Amino acid sequence: MRKFNKQKLIDSMTGALKLRSQINDVIDPLFKKGITNICWLGIGGTYASGMQANIHMKEKSALETFYQNAAEYNVTGNKRITDKTLVVISSVTGNTKEMVDAVKNLNQVGAIILGFMDDPHAKLASMLTYCISYPENEQLKFFMVGDRLMYLNGEFPDYDEFYQEMDQHFAKDIADIEENADDFAQKFAEKHHDDEIHYFVGAGNQWGATYSYAMCYWEEQHWIRTRAVEAAEFFHGMFEIVDRDTPVTVYVGEDSQRPLSERVAKFLPEICGNYTIIDSKDYDLPGFSEKYRGTLSPFVFHAINNRIDIHIEHINRHPMDIRRYYRCLDY
Amino acid sequence: MRKFNKQKLIDSMTGALKLRSQINDVIDPLFKKGITNICWLGIGGTYASGMQANIHMKEKSALETFYQNAAEYNVTGNKRITDKTLVVISSVTGNTKEMVDAVKNLNQVGAIILGFMDDPHAKLASMLTYCISYPENEQLKFFMVGDRLMYLNGEFPDYDEFYQEMDQHFAKDIADIEENADDFAQKFAEKHHDDEIHYFVGAGNQWGATYSYAMCYWEEQHWIRTRAVEAAEFFHGMFEIVDRDTPVTVYVGEDSQRPLSERVAKFLPEICGNYTIIDSKDYDLPGFSEKYRGTLSPFVFHAINNRIDIHIEHINRHPMDIRRYYRCLDY
Repeated sequence: MRKFNKQKLIDSMTGALKLRSQINDVIDPLFKKGITNICWLGIGGTYASGMQANIHMKEKSALETFYQNAAEYNVTGNKRITDKTLVVISSVTGNTKEMVDAVKNLNQVGAIILGFMDDPHAKLASMLTYCISYPENEQLKFFMVGDRLMYLNGEFPDYDEFYQEMDQHFAKDIADIEENADDFAQKFAEKHHDDEIHYFVGAGNQWGATYSYAMCYWEEQHWIRTRAVEAAEFFHGMFEIVDRDTPVTVYVGEDSQRPLSERVAKFLPEICGNYTIIDSKDYDLPGFSEKYRGTLSPFVFHAINNRIDIHIEHINRHPMDIRRYYRCLDY
Repeated sequence: MRKFNKQKLIDSMTGALKLRSQINDVIDPLFKKGITNICWLGIGGTYASGMQANIHMKEKSALETFYQNAAEYNVTGNKRITDKTLVVISSVTGNTKEMVDAVKNLNQVGAIILGFMDDPHAKLASMLTYCISYPENEQLKFFMVGDRLMYLNGEFPDYDEFYQEMDQHFAKDIADIEENADDFAQKFAEKHHDDEIHYFVGAGNQWGATYSYAMCYWEEQHWIRTRAVEAAEFFHGMFEIVDRDTPVTVYVGEDSQRPLSERVAKFLPEICGNYTIIDSKDYDLPGFSEKYRGTLSPFVFHAINNRIDIHIEHINRHPMDIRRYYRCLDY
């Protein structure tokens, strides 16, 4: 299998799960002291991860939670963000301009900032209230924060049961899915690596990932045009441009918004002959209770998408590290 | 000028502005009684209008305000919506399935629903707490609600001054802009009516309208492919697929997020030879104080877009009323 180091992948996820005690050491006293709301602040891929964490919490929680674009915060502000707000961020480089400026502005307001930094020595790290440093696994980190808050708010009584299953099975199950999805991913890549435009449809806790996969992977790293659309919105305009040959991929997850994606998946074959349905139900998650599959769907899709990327990169002979503009030109 | 009845346009906007006393008769006692938050609920075009109203309020307000997709509400719910929530909706037909279901669900929760219905006899009308019936001008209606709430919350002290200018100048100024923009709109339509895909960039109170214009007009009504992107996000992935011939239109408004659109407008000519910058600053708004131009930008763009649509419709000989799927097939 091309570019696949299963043990490394398992170790990475296992290590991320172990951050949970550090996360809880931050969240528990904060929650006890009292926070009024939770803001997921980011830009680009981290903005998308905020969308996912936010909708993940909406499933269960009455806490006020929202996502905020960093660049927009820098110009418009947000009066809901105060010194009683927990702002959660994530950054790989720690030097994204919009994020550095936003964190400065958050400090002016006195907001409580929990940052996950891939690089603990990054500029941003010293400006946070709490810094947890560990590479990758952004979505998992965010979900662990959201889940703890919901647990403390009495909205996730089976938190311990869920994380017992996570600690025991998550890393291996997801790594197995990467392995098992590789054949599908290769065929998908062979069919779509040269698309003029590719449409991606997602919903619920997969919408942020769909937005991000289309923009931060296909557009940014493969230079393939895309348009991502929320499943609920598909029927309100966008679908009029879908015809026989339009490439459309629908992610059908298992959270509460499954019916929205299913509706697209059911109708699409009537008007389109070039569609792909990726359904998380087709992938085993041994050791997990059925009721947790909805939460796990984005990780299933992420594993599949990883393999698609590896194959597109190779077929197109376009290393994913190449950028023509991003951080190459002044803008 | 093609399909242009200036007096009818002026009358439509003037009549909409006169709804303000009806709106205030609803909002004032509600605010006095106490509401905890404001939700803009919609789908497709009305979802987009909610995005605009929401960001319009973020400019000034510490009130909790958010937008919610109707279909997503029907499956995921939203625990922030209670019997103390003011939900604002708008509907032309009053029979959009997702909206009817959402309003039923809102009634279960006991939420306070203010609905603007183009048709007062629509199914939905009887299910609302308050119904105000008047055709079109959705954005104006929403802004009048948001502005009154901010006024009552002590965040818009010059409310009366602003609406004095609105009542005196808005309708004629915007109708004049439609007239004055027609030449530009015709040239734009001639250049772009056959684009394989067109990119639209917007920010702030124009983002919702940008999303809607791309999806509900070009995709749905002209059958031209589009991809809308928030100005702040342009630099975080999407711009890697822009090259010499990529058609990109940037709306540069005058609200607080102007710098985000300006940044795109400034950089774009370096990498793209097929761009259009539409800047609201290029359009006069006689009678209005400078400080209100930011609020008015989306109406300026709306007037220009209206004229573009008229010309594309004619050049493509594709009447905008035609749908191939929407409300034509079962889905």
